[in-house]
Amino acid sequence: MTSDSRFSGKSAAPSDVSGFRAPEIPPSSHSVARATHRVLTLRTTSQLELVNLTERVQDVVKAAAVREGLVLVSSMHTTLALMENEWQEALLQDIKTMLGDVIPAGREYRHNDPHQSDCDRKNAHSHLQATLLGHSLSFGVVNGRLALGQFQAIIAAELDGPRERQVTVQIFSFA
Amino acid sequence: MTSDSRFSGKSAAPSDVSGFRAPEIPPSSHSVARATHRVLTLRTTSQLELVNLTERVQDVVKAAAVREGLVLVSSMHTTLALMENEWQEALLQDIKTMLGDVIPAGREYRHNDPHQSDCDRKNAHSHLQATLLGHSLSFGVVNGRLALGQFQAIIAAELDGPRERQVTVQIFSFA
Amino acid sequence: MTSDSRFSGKSAAPSDVSGFRAPEIPPSSHSVARATHRVLTLRTTSQLELVNLTERVQDVVKAAAVREGLVLVSSMHTTLALMENEWQEALLQDIKTMLGDVIPAGREYRHNDPHQSDCDRKNAHSHLQATLLGHSLSFGVVNGRLALGQFQAIIAAELDGPRERQVTVQIFSFA
Repeated sequence: MTSDSRFSGKSAAPSDVSGFRAPEIPPSSHSVARATHRVLTLRTTSQLELVNLTERVQDVVKAAAVREGLVLVSSMHTTLALMENEWQEALLQDIKTMLGDVIPAGREYRHNDPHQSDCDRKNAHSHLQATLLGHSLSFGVVNGRLALGQFQAIIAAELDGPRERQVTVQIFSFA
Repeated sequence: MTSDSRFSGKSAAPSDVSGFRAPEIPPSSHSVARATHRVLTLRTTSQLELVNLTERVQDVVKAAAVREGLVLVSSMHTTLALMENEWQEALLQDIKTMLGDVIPAGREYRHNDPHQSDCDRKNAHSHLQATLLGHSLSFGVVNGRLALGQFQAIIAAELDGPRERQVTVQIFSFA
Repeated sequence: MTSDSRFSGKSAAPSDVSGFRAPEIPPSSHSVARATHRVLTLRTTSQLELVNLTERVQDVVKAAAVREGLVLVSSMHTTLALMENEWQEALLQDIKTMLGDVIPAGREYRHNDPHQSDCDRKNAHSHLQATLLGHSLSFGVVNGRLALGQFQAIIAAELDGPRERQVTVQIFSFA
């Protein structure tokens, strides 16, 4: 991901921070807010895997030709989480280690016990890790660009792969 | 909750995933985006309790007759969190156990110390657990249905009950 | 923050909880949804610091003169998180302690190892703590007021300060 394809904190800010941007009154031919969505498919290859969705979400925003709006990125799965952080190889390893430290796979969980659960994936830790990270992310669109800081990446956390996964990107356009 | 009342990942996806859904231009009689909200009241009965809000939120969406939109579900309390995961009895027990493992109730907390705090509920761990889970969830509405994956449930986590609690469901309709 | 400047759960709720608020049809002069945003600048003074943004976000909502809408508060940084909880001095100390308990600064992290990372800030724990708290918060606006519960504050968590930080507040108005 090149830096020029990212929304820099400085250029994102209106130069006049003391006042509001005047609300954009859209032309009459587009005079209503509108919603579109697209479903991204991921094919993960490991049990625990981080996938960079930043460019794919940016592409969806670009294709939707939205100037000012809101983007909701939602996992359609209980063991696929979404998070926002820096896409740096060493840090990605640290994130995976941390997830196992905070919620270890090897503990006894009721969800993994055939006497208490009909789930045979032994993935209780995957569910629990997902509850900590969360399943959706919201972003603004400002001046046609996803409002991300310079080092912020949109990351899907596969917590029980490999699987085919779906992430819904819904865009709400206001101008 | 029956499976047919849920939004399945597959049917949620437009069959043509390579392209956008054409933005819906609403008829002139409904030609503006609109916002409505409803407050759900919960009466919890335990100190630590998980409550399934999925059907109640789906009912609010249905009653609002929204086709494309955004739903924001917000806890109005610092010790009532909202999370998204599978509603399965064994897993619900694991979630409760995990919360106490990561943030134990029995540690020394300043918020529980009468010399440092005027709070007499001894609920520091409840506040801290809530910060990890979060206080609101956002969902899309696609084709009139809440965009949830097949196993995703909307769960309120009562972390300092029993109490009467309020959860605001706000719906933003775009078509 | 005085209690009268906050949105009380009870007054937030429509008195008739059994029915919907009728959707507000805005007058024709304001008949479109609109988006505005403002960037808040914070100057943090410690490595680990909590900053109360509640009044500043409320001021942005007030200045935008929005009656019904959605507010998205977004950190533009990977090591500045946003959270929602009670602004109480003893609890703030507990939150800081908890972050270090769950994600200790002193562990070995790859992101801090010069052989594996070009980052010389030794801030792996800051990144990891941020992934647990999250980088954005969404709030409703109901009857012109930010829909916060009586004790809910909007808190920025500086996890790698001191620094100058930017938080984007984007407002989507529906009436």
